[in-house]
Amino acid sequence: MSQLRRDPITGRWIIINTEKSVAPDKFDYVERPVKKGAKGCPFCPGNERMTPPEIIAHRRVGESNSPGWWIRVVPNKYPALEIEGELAKEGIGVFDKINGIGAHEVIIDSPDHFTELSDVDDKQAEEVIWAYLGRSIDLRRDKRFKYILVFRNYGMAAGASLEHPHSQLIALPIVPKRVNEEIKSSSEYFEYKERCVFCDLLRQEMEDKERIICENKHFFCFAPFVSRFPYEMWIIPKKHSSDFSLLEKEEVRPLGVILRDALHKLKVALNDPPYNFIIHTSPINGHEREDYHWHIEIMPKLVQVAGFEWGSGFYINPVAPEEVSKNLFGIE
Amino acid sequence: MSQLRRDPITGRWIIINTEKSVAPDKFDYVERPVKKGAKGCPFCPGNERMTPPEIIAHRRVGESNSPGWWIRVVPNKYPALEIEGELAKEGIGVFDKINGIGAHEVIIDSPDHFTELSDVDDKQAEEVIWAYLGRSIDLRRDKRFKYILVFRNYGMAAGASLEHPHSQLIALPIVPKRVNEEIKSSSEYFEYKERCVFCDLLRQEMEDKERIICENKHFFCFAPFVSRFPYEMWIIPKKHSSDFSLLEKEEVRPLGVILRDALHKLKVALNDPPYNFIIHTSPINGHEREDYHWHIEIMPKLVQVAGFEWGSGFYINPVAPEEVSKNLFGIE
Repeated sequence: MSQLRRDPITGRWIIINTEKSVAPDKFDYVERPVKKGAKGCPFCPGNERMTPPEIIAHRRVGESNSPGWWIRVVPNKYPALEIEGELAKEGIGVFDKINGIGAHEVIIDSPDHFTELSDVDDKQAEEVIWAYLGRSIDLRRDKRFKYILVFRNYGMAAGASLEHPHSQLIALPIVPKRVNEEIKSSSEYFEYKERCVFCDLLRQEMEDKERIICENKHFFCFAPFVSRFPYEMWIIPKKHSSDFSLLEKEEVRPLGVILRDALHKLKVALNDPPYNFIIHTSPINGHEREDYHWHIEIMPKLVQVAGFEWGSGFYINPVAPEEVSKNLFGIE
Repeated sequence: MSQLRRDPITGRWIIINTEKSVAPDKFDYVERPVKKGAKGCPFCPGNERMTPPEIIAHRRVGESNSPGWWIRVVPNKYPALEIEGELAKEGIGVFDKINGIGAHEVIIDSPDHFTELSDVDDKQAEEVIWAYLGRSIDLRRDKRFKYILVFRNYGMAAGASLEHPHSQLIALPIVPKRVNEEIKSSSEYFEYKERCVFCDLLRQEMEDKERIICENKHFFCFAPFVSRFPYEMWIIPKKHSSDFSLLEKEEVRPLGVILRDALHKLKVALNDPPYNFIIHTSPINGHEREDYHWHIEIMPKLVQVAGFEWGSGFYINPVAPEEVSKNLFGIE
């Protein structure tokens, strides 16, 4: 029989078949990410002039917008939001609108067209996190922005339009509804119990050990009890912290390494599936809050979200997270 | 410049490029629904024994589970939820779970494998609505259920696993979060203004005429000001009603016809794209409520939902709804 499970953080329900999970090799219809080649790639070294001028790059020597970098951050050439201008809010009858002010940046994760984040060395994994962190800290200073969203789309089926390894960052003039909901709900839990709901969840997952994927001194990676998607994984700091941009120096490399390891396990077990990951962090406010806990949600794209999911906000997941742990834990 | 628009019902924001919409013929990468053939199709007349025994069928003569029907409703062979059993709720630490009780039915929309809902005649369109309505009314009597969700996935890319024209119905033992949010928000609007937010929105859309797709005496179809997806359309009853299952006899055919017409326009303008549609209605409670208004949301599957959308609940829509109206209004 299937089971309905409720997420204590968002109140989201999922339907899961706990008796018979779909095996990892049964997702063979999934469109795999392809690397057709580096020719004409705007993110490859030597082609720096094909992107807007870089915002920042990690390089030892050499000029801006020339090769020699190992991480490069550029404005998105086709931004969803534009950086220039003042915020203008307006009502039209029952509707509200704002002009599209914001930042939309691309973090080029590696100079190598063919080496994905799942396969970089520890040093490069660390550098990617430094780039996320540096850009987050910098953009928080702009008073027009209320939220910074760091995410990665891997593979066309997950919404990536270029095949060179890259992540994205969007700074928004409003706090997105999805974030507000998460905060509101965890804040209610805190009011009631005087404890962070994520800390409680983390403690339970660390004790149960049934859904663990991997861990290190600072971070814990697990398949959540209430996974919306098959092979969904979360990475969460063991020490309470609400804000990714307050990450400490000694946490940067362990975060890069555990993220790389989780993606590598996914790649090996599921034949390199497309995925999205997103850093969930608190809105910009400059200090730690007790009631929220930042974390990364990794969502492989193995099933189609259909009418039922759209209509209900309810997800049908054909793989039990306990099974995900069994299948991924041992993979190096 | 792009525009951020806020939905008064859900509080959802979207980002839309109002200056330059993607043209209808630029979605050429979309995976089209295919009809490989009727051979071995469990939903075709003559193959009635390939499905679980029918729950109901519209037929003039003949025995159950034999040909001669024009609409047939059967239990889903691989249900997300099972109909037999008692509800058992349980807490496990911070989590809640329920066993998977519910109904999962398939409405076979037509005996003809190749004639989609976008192309049926008025009579068949009406019959489909009668089937949705009949099953909704019947399942509401089961005290274990709190919500009935009627939806349709068209094309593999929209989650359909069989190509024969069909819709689905799921009866749930809880009210889904997505529905609760919509109700809560429209209820707050009602408390504040003593008016239904959907009625206000409908009035504004009928006056503006900028986003209209088609209408008849009882129903209005439009591209919402805050469309999450390109070519999203809503069909809404002109007369206030919170509950689809309270649909009146004279409204059944007009609803079938406007739904067929909207789908037909979509098919013609966008070369037969995959889509989902969902009937949004109030939870089961047996009487009309003033603060909610049932409606159908049609969501074509033309773009991938990527990391940004998942992380924020914010949608980037490359086609302005005003453009959708221009492109679809004139199509017969």
